[in-house]
Amino acid sequence: MNPNQLRLYLVTDRPLSLGRDLLWVVREAVAGGATIVQLREKDIDTREFVELGRQLVEELRPMDVPLIINDRVDVALAVDADGVHIGQSDMPYADARRLLGPDKIIGLSVETMDELREANLLDVDYIAVSPVYSTATKTDTAPPFGLEGLREAAALTHHPSVAIGGMNLGTVADAMACGIDGVAVVSAICSAPEPRAAAAELRKLADANAKNV
Amino acid sequence: MNPNQLRLYLVTDRPLSLGRDLLWVVREAVAGGATIVQLREKDIDTREFVELGRQLVEELRPMDVPLIINDRVDVALAVDADGVHIGQSDMPYADARRLLGPDKIIGLSVETMDELREANLLDVDYIAVSPVYSTATKTDTAPPFGLEGLREAAALTHHPSVAIGGMNLGTVADAMACGIDGVAVVSAICSAPEPRAAAAELRKLADANAKNV
Repeated sequence: MNPNQLRLYLVTDRPLSLGRDLLWVVREAVAGGATIVQLREKDIDTREFVELGRQLVEELRPMDVPLIINDRVDVALAVDADGVHIGQSDMPYADARRLLGPDKIIGLSVETMDELREANLLDVDYIAVSPVYSTATKTDTAPPFGLEGLREAAALTHHPSVAIGGMNLGTVADAMACGIDGVAVVSAICSAPEPRAAAAELRKLADANAKNV
Repeated sequence: MNPNQLRLYLVTDRPLSLGRDLLWVVREAVAGGATIVQLREKDIDTREFVELGRQLVEELRPMDVPLIINDRVDVALAVDADGVHIGQSDMPYADARRLLGPDKIIGLSVETMDELREANLLDVDYIAVSPVYSTATKTDTAPPFGLEGLREAAALTHHPSVAIGGMNLGTVADAMACGIDGVAVVSAICSAPEPRAAAAELRKLADANAKNV
């Protein structure tokens, strides 16, 4: 995939969206500058997951914004999403690739340098270095990479990379300066009073500190 | 599918298995006479679900006992299971069939006569009439069918059918006499002191009261 598509990566979170409609939050985020969207749903019926995914594909495809489904390869296949994002306890990469075929995007979370090195042996489309900082959004994460770890990760990986965990207006510039391709945000957009404005500011910061500007 | 394969349908439940290894419980149940096995896991990482599924396929395929995966079409595809079982809030039947192809088994739970009639319009391989009685195993179910409802369901459906919900040594004979093809059990095997002996007794009762004996 084009690494620039990772520049501002929105990960959805309905509980963090202040009761606002998910489609509205996504629409606003993309209008503000989000370049890729991951639908992440942890406690949802498969039927509702499929319905949401289908609505998002319909919304995002005309704008050339890829939709990535968290974990659920079946949902991605059912709605013809652009790919999946898998963690280390999700479906093994080889199985996901076999089911999705060569053309779909597969992103992989790495929580340690060892996992990052293993990811270098896989044909994943991008990695998410997770977490850069500890956050309240995900409480089951590994020790944070910090900026030094993120720099090391960006230097070691063979793949396009995004940073996740504590990415917000105060942290995006330093993170991008580590040499990654983009930042993944959850609450900085989902919980923002104005998701569109928040996305625009985050995008500006990410662009200004990107490698190839 | 051959309706006789539904005769004694084991639905796994690790929390109800008294701390015993799931593979052992399944092996014992099949040795006792279970004719089909559904792997049902609600709170499990996808990776572990795939690993369990793969172990069960390896175990059951040589014995010609079909393995059905609950809800997760991706897990079924990854491990090449024999099919999936879907409920009314899981992936829609049409999507599941498209992803699995014409040869895999797709079973569907119906909780009302209306759902049963709708299922008659689908090319599902079997239906599960759920629940016959209220149970502690599933607390989110619709009002129970009871024996009268089960008889009506068996008469109305165009598909092979199993009954689920409160099926045990005391209820199997009456349920089978309603004209269904098999009984699905959870705790009557998973929580039995001797799953093999329990399966053997249940199977005997189910066979003795089956339509075509």
